[in-house]
Amino acid sequence: MLREIKIDDIEYLAAGSAFLGTGGGGDPYLGSILCREAISKYGPVPLLSVEELSDSDAVFVAAAMGAPTVLIEKLFSLEDQDCAVRALERHTGREASAIISAEIGGCNSMMPVAYAAMRGLPLVDGDGMGRAFPALQMTSFNIAGVDCAPLTLADEHGNCVLIEAQSGLRAEELARPLAAEMGAGVSISCYAMTGKEARRAVVPNTLSGAIAIGEAVARNNGASPVDRLLSVLRAHRYYREANLIFAGKIVDLERNTRQGWVFGKCEIAALDGGARADVAFQNENLSVYVDGALKCVVPDLITLVDLETAEAIPTERLAYGQRVGVIGCSAPPQIRNEDALKTVGPQCFGLDISFTPIENLMRDVE
Amino acid sequence: MLREIKIDDIEYLAAGSAFLGTGGGGDPYLGSILCREAISKYGPVPLLSVEELSDSDAVFVAAAMGAPTVLIEKLFSLEDQDCAVRALERHTGREASAIISAEIGGCNSMMPVAYAAMRGLPLVDGDGMGRAFPALQMTSFNIAGVDCAPLTLADEHGNCVLIEAQSGLRAEELARPLAAEMGAGVSISCYAMTGKEARRAVVPNTLSGAIAIGEAVARNNGASPVDRLLSVLRAHRYYREANLIFAGKIVDLERNTRQGWVFGKCEIAALDGGARADVAFQNENLSVYVDGALKCVVPDLITLVDLETAEAIPTERLAYGQRVGVIGCSAPPQIRNEDALKTVGPQCFGLDISFTPIENLMRDVE
Repeated sequence: MLREIKIDDIEYLAAGSAFLGTGGGGDPYLGSILCREAISKYGPVPLLSVEELSDSDAVFVAAAMGAPTVLIEKLFSLEDQDCAVRALERHTGREASAIISAEIGGCNSMMPVAYAAMRGLPLVDGDGMGRAFPALQMTSFNIAGVDCAPLTLADEHGNCVLIEAQSGLRAEELARPLAAEMGAGVSISCYAMTGKEARRAVVPNTLSGAIAIGEAVARNNGASPVDRLLSVLRAHRYYREANLIFAGKIVDLERNTRQGWVFGKCEIAALDGGARADVAFQNENLSVYVDGALKCVVPDLITLVDLETAEAIPTERLAYGQRVGVIGCSAPPQIRNEDALKTVGPQCFGLDISFTPIENLMRDVE
Repeated sequence: MLREIKIDDIEYLAAGSAFLGTGGGGDPYLGSILCREAISKYGPVPLLSVEELSDSDAVFVAAAMGAPTVLIEKLFSLEDQDCAVRALERHTGREASAIISAEIGGCNSMMPVAYAAMRGLPLVDGDGMGRAFPALQMTSFNIAGVDCAPLTLADEHGNCVLIEAQSGLRAEELARPLAAEMGAGVSISCYAMTGKEARRAVVPNTLSGAIAIGEAVARNNGASPVDRLLSVLRAHRYYREANLIFAGKIVDLERNTRQGWVFGKCEIAALDGGARADVAFQNENLSVYVDGALKCVVPDLITLVDLETAEAIPTERLAYGQRVGVIGCSAPPQIRNEDALKTVGPQCFGLDISFTPIENLMRDVE
């Protein structure tokens, strides 16, 4: 069992969370630099399982919010993150005893590590999505009844905003235009919860899970990188329904940054020129169709990887002509049950389809 | 000297502040209903001159923020206003000992009366503009160095936001998209200041001034309403450079609500069909040209009034064919000096002209 996060784990965490980012959440690479720097300065970060939290622990989310196309150009600072968390601590009258990631996918799995190091606080091994999602209310925390607000946002100019909203969705709707106005990327804190609430609301063990995924892909065991990725996913308790849905070359790409998000789609042609796959995304990949048949849909995970290295490709790095594999896998049960689908199901992304688990969709094909 | 605001004053305050609203600030009529109700329930509102404030008094702004086209459709509640002021009191750790208007023009001169009545607090006879302006940083408070932020916004659904910004302009830039998201109209509190700061930063006596203007127009003394209006303005220490710049019929009108503001222009033809006047506005009227020659420009006041009744017509009530007089008058010195023009001069509204006082522009013509 992983007890702390050391410098050597960061590379694996970055690779694993890039995969779990399902195209969004921002490239973890920049965050990994920040993590390495923070750990070398402040020491390794103790990892706490949710079972180890005491009822009265004060767990605070540290995160970045914004469009991935901007997040890759704007390096977040721990000072901004500290502004956001301290403002929320002042407002709630509680001091953080542990930090947690809102999402394990993308750069939001990195910032909390660096911030916990700086604060000398333990990090919870878990998160609120078990992947990445594009909106604040799309968390297992919210699904389990923990309030997103009060929520704080801080930018690099010392501006700080505190939002008290009547729902997670409303917090998102108020925070999103602010994040856009604050340079399309800000540090935030939200979902302040007790240890008792965390045990009920967190998707557990996703941080150690992301490190395990990254490490398995990196360690050459004779199999191809894509096969190593599929093996580690199939051995995982959440992601085990894992498939290489499609392999081919990107032949069409559409990507628009608007309202603080990146919307778009990507068409992939099989290398022999026959079959086609269509992937739609809003920050994260939402759905994949092969020759018109749905193969995987949100909240199940869809990630495009480099066919040679199995490295995850975020939506903002997709390019015409890239040779990619489309990997789909099952989401953790906390974000996949009937209740959760009201918050993170296909309709929540404007898709006019019902959720069908990947294992059923893949079975339909064969 | 006016010592308190009674129900009978409300009609005059509404008429006077409609004129000082220079087309913007929202129609005071809806606010006047709220005021009458509040005064009949809680009693008259004591009026304090800035000289009567003690150094340590805690003066809080109560205001509505939004596009006038929306403000006329959305009746603000004292409960929302209370949410905003109480949130700012909690954050600053001070309890309000007096309420003040941010702007004496439009509905923002009314809400503070009703709110002061509800809280049983005195109202300061003065404001931060001596007229209406479309943006939060455009106040004598800001010009005198009082910080706009921390600023709070509250909506009718119980959502509340607190903004800490590094400048008044930044507070405005962050609050505006939020106000738009919160239904294009919200209750706010900001510019929390001490009595000592207020004495330095307030445009004094504008509340009693607005009531005097409204009362003079209402009391028939044999002269026409427009002449009565010009007389009371010419007798006032701020607004005395007052002129009927143009009289005619509206022949063209353009009005767009975007980014939480109303932008537009209005063309007026002399009744004999010869001369033309062009009025440009952003919530408030910004400039008036007659046959291509500038006659009055912001921060000096420009108000369109009904030619028969001298009643001020807000930009959102302008209509093709209306017979209107364009009245221009001098602004208070606090918002008209060289330093103030950096914050409320023509360039601050995107106009590519320098400020020239109305008395000079009108002299040029003759």
